[in-house]
Amino acid sequence: MLQSYKPALALIQQALEEDGAFSDITTLSTVPAENWSRGRILARKPGVIAGLAIAADAFRFFDERVRVELLVQDGAVVQANEDLILLEGPARSLLSVERTALNFIGRLSGIATLTAHCVQAIEGTHARIIDTRKTTPGLRLLEKEAVRLGGGQNHRFGLNDGVLIKDNHIKAAGGITQAVAATRRMVPHLLKIEVECETHDEVRQALAAGAEVLLLDNMDVEMMRQAVAMIRQEAPQVLIEASGDIGTNTERLQLVAQTGVDFISLGALTHSAPNFNISLEFNS
Amino acid sequence: MLQSYKPALALIQQALEEDGAFSDITTLSTVPAENWSRGRILARKPGVIAGLAIAADAFRFFDERVRVELLVQDGAVVQANEDLILLEGPARSLLSVERTALNFIGRLSGIATLTAHCVQAIEGTHARIIDTRKTTPGLRLLEKEAVRLGGGQNHRFGLNDGVLIKDNHIKAAGGITQAVAATRRMVPHLLKIEVECETHDEVRQALAAGAEVLLLDNMDVEMMRQAVAMIRQEAPQVLIEASGDIGTNTERLQLVAQTGVDFISLGALTHSAPNFNISLEFNS
Amino acid sequence: MLQSYKPALALIQQALEEDGAFSDITTLSTVPAENWSRGRILARKPGVIAGLAIAADAFRFFDERVRVELLVQDGAVVQANEDLILLEGPARSLLSVERTALNFIGRLSGIATLTAHCVQAIEGTHARIIDTRKTTPGLRLLEKEAVRLGGGQNHRFGLNDGVLIKDNHIKAAGGITQAVAATRRMVPHLLKIEVECETHDEVRQALAAGAEVLLLDNMDVEMMRQAVAMIRQEAPQVLIEASGDIGTNTERLQLVAQTGVDFISLGALTHSAPNFNISLEFNS
Amino acid sequence: MLQSYKPALALIQQALEEDGAFSDITTLSTVPAENWSRGRILARKPGVIAGLAIAADAFRFFDERVRVELLVQDGAVVQANEDLILLEGPARSLLSVERTALNFIGRLSGIATLTAHCVQAIEGTHARIIDTRKTTPGLRLLEKEAVRLGGGQNHRFGLNDGVLIKDNHIKAAGGITQAVAATRRMVPHLLKIEVECETHDEVRQALAAGAEVLLLDNMDVEMMRQAVAMIRQEAPQVLIEASGDIGTNTERLQLVAQTGVDFISLGALTHSAPNFNISLEFNS
Amino acid sequence: MLQSYKPALALIQQALEEDGAFSDITTLSTVPAENWSRGRILARKPGVIAGLAIAADAFRFFDERVRVELLVQDGAVVQANEDLILLEGPARSLLSVERTALNFIGRLSGIATLTAHCVQAIEGTHARIIDTRKTTPGLRLLEKEAVRLGGGQNHRFGLNDGVLIKDNHIKAAGGITQAVAATRRMVPHLLKIEVECETHDEVRQALAAGAEVLLLDNMDVEMMRQAVAMIRQEAPQVLIEASGDIGTNTERLQLVAQTGVDFISLGALTHSAPNFNISLEFNS
Amino acid sequence: MLQSYKPALALIQQALEEDGAFSDITTLSTVPAENWSRGRILARKPGVIAGLAIAADAFRFFDERVRVELLVQDGAVVQANEDLILLEGPARSLLSVERTALNFIGRLSGIATLTAHCVQAIEGTHARIIDTRKTTPGLRLLEKEAVRLGGGQNHRFGLNDGVLIKDNHIKAAGGITQAVAATRRMVPHLLKIEVECETHDEVRQALAAGAEVLLLDNMDVEMMRQAVAMIRQEAPQVLIEASGDIGTNTERLQLVAQTGVDFISLGALTHSAPNFNISLEFNS
Repeated sequence: MLQSYKPALALIQQALEEDGAFSDITTLSTVPAENWSRGRILARKPGVIAGLAIAADAFRFFDERVRVELLVQDGAVVQANEDLILLEGPARSLLSVERTALNFIGRLSGIATLTAHCVQAIEGTHARIIDTRKTTPGLRLLEKEAVRLGGGQNHRFGLNDGVLIKDNHIKAAGGITQAVAATRRMVPHLLKIEVECETHDEVRQALAAGAEVLLLDNMDVEMMRQAVAMIRQEAPQVLIEASGDIGTNTERLQLVAQTGVDFISLGALTHSAPNFNISLEFNS
Repeated sequence: MLQSYKPALALIQQALEEDGAFSDITTLSTVPAENWSRGRILARKPGVIAGLAIAADAFRFFDERVRVELLVQDGAVVQANEDLILLEGPARSLLSVERTALNFIGRLSGIATLTAHCVQAIEGTHARIIDTRKTTPGLRLLEKEAVRLGGGQNHRFGLNDGVLIKDNHIKAAGGITQAVAATRRMVPHLLKIEVECETHDEVRQALAAGAEVLLLDNMDVEMMRQAVAMIRQEAPQVLIEASGDIGTNTERLQLVAQTGVDFISLGALTHSAPNFNISLEFNS
Repeated sequence: MLQSYKPALALIQQALEEDGAFSDITTLSTVPAENWSRGRILARKPGVIAGLAIAADAFRFFDERVRVELLVQDGAVVQANEDLILLEGPARSLLSVERTALNFIGRLSGIATLTAHCVQAIEGTHARIIDTRKTTPGLRLLEKEAVRLGGGQNHRFGLNDGVLIKDNHIKAAGGITQAVAATRRMVPHLLKIEVECETHDEVRQALAAGAEVLLLDNMDVEMMRQAVAMIRQEAPQVLIEASGDIGTNTERLQLVAQTGVDFISLGALTHSAPNFNISLEFNS
Repeated sequence: MLQSYKPALALIQQALEEDGAFSDITTLSTVPAENWSRGRILARKPGVIAGLAIAADAFRFFDERVRVELLVQDGAVVQANEDLILLEGPARSLLSVERTALNFIGRLSGIATLTAHCVQAIEGTHARIIDTRKTTPGLRLLEKEAVRLGGGQNHRFGLNDGVLIKDNHIKAAGGITQAVAATRRMVPHLLKIEVECETHDEVRQALAAGAEVLLLDNMDVEMMRQAVAMIRQEAPQVLIEASGDIGTNTERLQLVAQTGVDFISLGALTHSAPNFNISLEFNS
Repeated sequence: MLQSYKPALALIQQALEEDGAFSDITTLSTVPAENWSRGRILARKPGVIAGLAIAADAFRFFDERVRVELLVQDGAVVQANEDLILLEGPARSLLSVERTALNFIGRLSGIATLTAHCVQAIEGTHARIIDTRKTTPGLRLLEKEAVRLGGGQNHRFGLNDGVLIKDNHIKAAGGITQAVAATRRMVPHLLKIEVECETHDEVRQALAAGAEVLLLDNMDVEMMRQAVAMIRQEAPQVLIEASGDIGTNTERLQLVAQTGVDFISLGALTHSAPNFNISLEFNS
Repeated sequence: MLQSYKPALALIQQALEEDGAFSDITTLSTVPAENWSRGRILARKPGVIAGLAIAADAFRFFDERVRVELLVQDGAVVQANEDLILLEGPARSLLSVERTALNFIGRLSGIATLTAHCVQAIEGTHARIIDTRKTTPGLRLLEKEAVRLGGGQNHRFGLNDGVLIKDNHIKAAGGITQAVAATRRMVPHLLKIEVECETHDEVRQALAAGAEVLLLDNMDVEMMRQAVAMIRQEAPQVLIEASGDIGTNTERLQLVAQTGVDFISLGALTHSAPNFNISLEFNS
């Protein structure tokens, strides 16, 4: 949604080459070039689907004669055994791309489904679920898109498009005030400055230094509640993010959300989402 | 172990660029270029470690002044809170590479640890745990190495370096006999020919056609046991692989292994291994 | 300053290949491989220097035997005929890289020098000089670094790391309020939202919608002064940027700065800076 | 004109990625995917246009649904406010590519316009305006095409497709005679050999050595006139190039041209041409 | 046949760039852009054709307006002066791609024709002609495809998709038995293990170690015949490959084939095949 | 000689990846990482050596611990069984790079040796042996360097660095005069203009048009002799090239050279040179 499509072709090509899809010796030996097939990709369990667009493009990139029809769009909530994509084209091409396409959908739908679970867990609260930079090397853009498709929002995409001042930055700069001032002077004026705080004292210092977003790290729920109260009183426009191995447990998420924070960031969305089970069935 | 190292540099560079590590605006604004730091990467729970070599190279690639000392090697079994790597170098470089390095170790150690669990589950049997092509796009070589580090063995790396004849290939070729003959004629003579079988009848046909490896797909344990017996009697040199959503449950793995198969292939090793928890601590 | 160095190697290689430096047929025909030379790069007129680091790396990348000594650092204010770099190494390598190195320094120092001129023009005011996205395709990172070296600050680096809502976005969203709300919901929470305004009425709407930065576009000085007053009164924390073909004329810059805006953005810094005159002299 | 088109796609992609055009967060948040727009690119002042073809391809590369109609071709002489290109397509795509397209046209038209000015300055003389290797890293082919579009001719494209013997080559080879002989023996027989001369004595030596082109470097007009006379008498088939910070001043160009040289090479064409002012207007 | 097509586009682009085809200055200067031409590529002598598909794609990649009609397919046996391809399109594009297209066809048809000669030489025997890894850097896939088109079969494609244990491996492992066991334990179970043997004793050891393929290296015909007899008796399922500068002489090939080996591998197929003579004729 | 070295690293990497050298499963399974070996590359027959530098770099690129000592330099004339390179380093690395290194040396030395044969054939005449654009896709720079190492000279490297007007260019331009004039106007002034002639009449027209080099195509020896006489009389400074399937037969080369032409261009040098036999021996 926040990304146009061209760059993913390089990733598709890399994945197909990695799988040897351009030299699928079993298929090339057994399936005549002129054979035509139909098939469908279907969900094996309920969830939120992601990766359909890139899977569709993998088939088209490999062989432009393959016709791909998306029965649902990325972001759709689907039932077990619901059909997702219809395919028609050279049998060789369907067979050679199958695994690559399923690998994309399985991983990305796993992330979208886990995100949706977490979003639902805190429904009714003010907070939003956001991701982190704990993504799979090479797949960050796609994984962050999957988070959005599951109803989450994105944290910064990398070290170059957001400021997050942590303890080592503070020590090096000589204090929170100095660190905030240094970044303010150096980075584009469109970026807010976020400071990581582990204690109430750090929260106070960060507010005094003019931080625009506070990350409450590894606080227990009660401590977090107090920090939120303090911030809301002193600087109502400041945004608050809760972080620190919070996990995807429903109850825990609710407790954190009820502290009144604006955002809950969860590494598990992208680094520990189990695969979403899908398969490709050929019409006989 | 089965791979030399050069190509991973491209992956490291891609991961660092994706993370904006070359333009870490927080660090560049707050940490003076001349600051020097020491830190260590440590395991947060027990498991089998993978990804240390690539993480070490990420630091060195980013800044050749960083000194990296591996306290354990990839494949090591470690305890909770055990130190893995010592780092020393420009503070900026340690901070800018931290997340990328941890993302590699966390994912790959998760796979190695889950593999080791499955290998241990079937200890005492004849069978070996092997992986599948259900890997993360772009990371196949590293993920398959993590499987080996966890004590598993690799299935084929792609469609181009192994023959696995499935039902669609058989239909297209006009039967198992024809499919086996066609691949024998076309592929390099160093490759064995594997045929996927879902029934005892298919097992018989595959043996008759001269298949050198049989994949028993989605059979229940009893059916599998009978198939193994049949194969051992008729063609003792033929290898047998069990497959089909077997999962990583210890009891289930033992039951399957006890049927006498040679290999159990598990997609979950690579597509659903949870992240292994590690962190980088700076010396104060 | 806000950028580490690795990615520039690709640019250096591209530039050297484009110049045929790896096959300098005149030099390879006339200069023996064993000839060793010394030379220096010097400024031909006063200004602010940029591009020394990349020029130095061009020599080292081409031939690691070349020794490069920087007599001043990027960002230095230099006099006419001041020496910048000393070189020593194989004569062939110095000759083959010369033009590529000078092209980098000449262009980037031109930008830094023009920026410094504009920064000086508004000295004593509150405003800061910032750049735009009107950069040379392929050189944005280097050109924006040259702006910082000249004392300027950077606007967003691309469409992906900052929000600037223009008239077409507003029309498409159905109004300023809707456009601001839509971006707030979709983009990472670390980004401020800037709205382009051409009239006082638009300024009022943008403030009401919660814009955090206002771009005053193509306003005359009086109109701009009034807009600034209005904004400071209603929303003192909002940042103000002046834009719209302001140019690099000293008097005009002073008038704009004296309106009280926070930032003046100038396309001319990067799209019309004349080359800075430098040369490489060989020791005889 | 002397270049076919494929390789420019890589440059287009690089420029779009550099601008974050594939993730234009403002546009993706505010403009619905189904919105369709029309717009036109127009000149803001009179000049010679270049870069239309590459700008058109940037739109098509980004989104093949964009229809681009060129109202004039590259090389056209246009008036202020003359329309250059009509655009129709998804509003998102027009907005996301706008800046990249304008950056190409602005820079290249600036070069073509400045070249045309210089060509016109010496109209009526025998001489031709040619460019140098003082181009922007990464853009040499496009910038040299812009020179041709402005009526100029190209010098060599790089160190690998032309021979130009300078003082350091002569010293290393042991004299002009040796340097010319060495290159003659080594380089393809389709290349002429040019020698740089700063004095009349060097001119004489170069002629004696069999140089086929002479570059008169940093000579004043009178000295140049005498050199031309000498060359025409002794070796009428030899080509003569004037060089050395000649600049783009009309009077100076006329004086140089009237010495009778064949070519005047000007670094300023490519390293100091100011941006040509254009804009993209959307139809309301 | 055992390869789909996408990756060859990168090779086509590399070849066209290497030939300067995108800047064919002679053609661009003399042939108007609107000129349309027809031409045909024809064989100058009899042989087996390869490279037509990639040549056709070179024309289409350069200019999608070129229409290419293949009169025969890769693998066809053709007569002298037989037409292979009809071309129609912009004259400029036909001229600029001509040499690159012919270079591909000439080299690959040379390999296919030489292979066909060797295959024919041993007709009536049980043996098959196979290639080696002695291919041209960068062209392995295409050259191995040409071998198949000529009727040969492929040996392994690289060091990563087949096991061939040579003397240095055996020494390092501590003996044939250890070497075979080590590879069996480490490599995917779909790969057969081949051992190189120079003596009858080594043949015996390799059989005892469980090698599945034996390479008889540098044996004279009598010695080879005895080795074959020994292997057939002891391990009838083991495959036998003859190797070692056997060359392409018909008589020698027949003698080797008549020893009863399964495969004869020939480096000369790919490293010493003379160019196949073809040309492109334009219709006048 | 006319080329520096950096770009060849990309070719080396491509060749090593193509050969699967980074995952040499036989070697990695059987040879311990700590084993150290010595070996030498030696010529199996007499000839002129090329490719040593690139082979040496292949070893170093793969593993910087490999020490490579060149006993002779590229261009050396060697005897059968003469040692060329000494190697020392990790046994794994020597084994994994062996084939790639030998493939480079074998092919390039084949070209250098064949070139030297042709150069020797015409010794005592005025003519020089030159190459053509009939090279292996991807290897042109290396193959043309091998021609120089064998004592030949290079024709143009591609369509972009030399002008050769053929019959289709002449037809399109409306005649030889027009074609020559068109190229003169468009291409850099450092390029000579060559015209292909098949008849004496075309020779006359080309001279009249001011061609600076004439290519006599497919003329028999007598006709060529007459053409040379005509050209020497009318335009003594014009260069003459003989071409057209001349081949590498000594007697034929002498006859052609004795016509007095300046250059004989031979496609066979690069498209049909047989492999030069070398091998790598490990010290026991």
